Amino acid sequence: MFAPAYLDHNATTPPDARVLEAMLPFLTERYGNPSSRHEYGRAARAAIDAARQQVAAAVGAHPTEVVFASCGSEANNLFIKGAAACLKPGTIAVSAIEHPCVREPAADLKRLGWGLHEIAVDAEGRVVAADFSAALAKPAKLVSVMLANNETGVLQDIPALAAQARAARAWFHTDAVQALGKVAIDFRALNAAGVNALTISAHKIYGPKGAAALVLDKRVELKPLISGGGQERNLRSGTENVAAIVGFGAACELATAQLEADAARLAELRGRLEEGLAGPGASIYSRNAPRLPNTTFFTLAGIDGETLVAQLDRAGYAVASGSACSSVSPEPSHTLLAMGVEPGMAKGALRVSLGRANTQEDVARFLQALDETVRKLKGLAAVAA
Amino acid sequence: MFAPAYLDHNATTPPDARVLEAMLPFLTERYGNPSSRHEYGRAARAAIDAARQQVAAAVGAHPTEVVFASCGSEANNLFIKGAAACLKPGTIAVSAIEHPCVREPAADLKRLGWGLHEIAVDAEGRVVAADFSAALAKPAKLVSVMLANNETGVLQDIPALAAQARAARAWFHTDAVQALGKVAIDFRALNAAGVNALTISAHKIYGPKGAAALVLDKRVELKPLISGGGQERNLRSGTENVAAIVGFGAACELATAQLEADAARLAELRGRLEEGLAGPGASIYSRNAPRLPNTTFFTLAGIDGETLVAQLDRAGYAVASGSACSSVSPEPSHTLLAMGVEPGMAKGALRVSLGRANTQEDVARFLQALDETVRKLKGLAAVAA
Repeated sequence: MFAPAYLDHNATTPPDARVLEAMLPFLTERYGNPSSRHEYGRAARAAIDAARQQVAAAVGAHPTEVVFASCGSEANNLFIKGAAACLKPGTIAVSAIEHPCVREPAADLKRLGWGLHEIAVDAEGRVVAADFSAALAKPAKLVSVMLANNETGVLQDIPALAAQARAARAWFHTDAVQALGKVAIDFRALNAAGVNALTISAHKIYGPKGAAALVLDKRVELKPLISGGGQERNLRSGTENVAAIVGFGAACELATAQLEADAARLAELRGRLEEGLAGPGASIYSRNAPRLPNTTFFTLAGIDGETLVAQLDRAGYAVASGSACSSVSPEPSHTLLAMGVEPGMAKGALRVSLGRANTQEDVARFLQALDETVRKLKGLAAVAA
Repeated sequence: MFAPAYLDHNATTPPDARVLEAMLPFLTERYGNPSSRHEYGRAARAAIDAARQQVAAAVGAHPTEVVFASCGSEANNLFIKGAAACLKPGTIAVSAIEHPCVREPAADLKRLGWGLHEIAVDAEGRVVAADFSAALAKPAKLVSVMLANNETGVLQDIPALAAQARAARAWFHTDAVQALGKVAIDFRALNAAGVNALTISAHKIYGPKGAAALVLDKRVELKPLISGGGQERNLRSGTENVAAIVGFGAACELATAQLEADAARLAELRGRLEEGLAGPGASIYSRNAPRLPNTTFFTLAGIDGETLVAQLDRAGYAVASGSACSSVSPEPSHTLLAMGVEPGMAKGALRVSLGRANTQEDVARFLQALDETVRKLKGLAAVAA
């Protein structure tokens, strides 16, 4: 089988073999419904309880604060729509660089009569303090700012933002889907600062697709999106995806154990990559801000991102022109536009997100392939001109 | 490992080995995000497309009518809340024996200003025609009546009910989660009769937990519960659970191939079981109505259902006192109460739901264990008296 080098770990990650091993009993002989009272049901319930402990431990939360959901998008929608349903319409503030699964629920609230404030970011993609204060002054009832951006990898100063939100009596949520496993997360400390909820997902940390969690301060009242049998403290009904939840727990444990080593190694690899990108003259976004250690988002002037992704795919390198979730539309990255990047440059953007299996050789070979591809594309452009 | 005989297939089913085999590549080397443009992403997208064909074929639908969701509860909530969000408040009518994941969303609509009509059922658990007409006359805008009940197995005459709903200009939905794989389902014919949507789920048909579908007439406008990246024609955002969806497809194909043989064999086994239940004098519910071939719901007078489940579990038989989704509460079955069964009798109810692996010997041994357990419990009762 043709197996291109995978350099797109912010889109999804390969499940770790140990994760799959942990899941398999729940896809074979331990198939019970966790709500059943018999042996099969109790074994499934015990497995979910154990996974809840593992997930909670990975983010410094109490197990009873973990609400399992099917994906990060669901968890983000649950917080925004669920909290809004318990409040009278007011203002929701979300940063201009949120994932669509935060921006769209916020837009849904706007259609229901809420005010929507998109918090501006600066040229590096960091929240503009003055605009954040302006949003809170409206006053905002709900605030969501992502911990790490999926495209640039830029990190926000969440404790500082959350402290302001708490002072303004707004619920503060952070989408930590891209941060988990790449930087340390401590919900206890974040919660003390003012964070009321955070979202994490299994498939970004070498776990399976199909499990995510909203880690939730119990003072926040939420209406469920999915009502019914009352699972997950009535916040998320439906038969639990036991195998995926077990895999999420296993992946969390591995992520914690490997966090420091992974982060250091990936930062070093990313450094080599970015040195190499100086050759073809790449503009690297958010380079002067704190970033995830594995992510590089850049533009090579005069080269189209989509074309480059397709050419590199053919050459055996899986990279992205932006987040996978907006890959269906050919629009330039909304993250870059919010940062004030000119649309032509934004359309040229390419994201490389490194992961556990990547090596120095992958990076060296990728740089070579990129160089050849760019030469070819520029050659074509010269012929056409 | 202690492996009790599993007689609770309406709660969940063991994934078929061929289903797991189909899933494994998507938990290992084919791990791409279906929204990614590269080789990994395209392989995942192709797998979802193929599974959509398999699922559609199993219920006689067009692939573009299949909307994947994470579980049956989500699909039922999506239809009810999603359709209601596109309508001005009116009346929703649901049968009195629906699963909580239909009754609760209907109750949620009531809190938003909708009228709620619970359609009465008769002593056999069949919808009362006069009350169904009364519900439509209000007039109802949304109607949901399950194809097969999860506890009694009773089947409703869905084409006749749907035809009336269409004449009354109401959207008609049917929860077919328990019906799939046990009786034939033809969405094309149902849709022609007046059914606008039906819900099916993988884990009830020897597929994995984590995948389900709303099969949807495109004339129905729905607002998504989960908004974001725009997956599933904008009706269900979030990274698709590729492996579970692939497993759902494989399970659907097997269910179709084995439907007739499975149904005939299970009906025969169930016949033996019900003959045997005459000995201890069981009252079998819905026996005079069309039922699923695998389900028996009965009470042994003077015996508590919960106690019996626990004793039988210890003896090595996994059965239920009612649906798994309401097993967390000790309330008597709402299905039986709606049928006019006296609460004391309803509390004694036991559900046996047979499946592919069950044999004549399982049934014979279960009947013997039941007989012994009942003697013991009656003996204890006599001593206590």
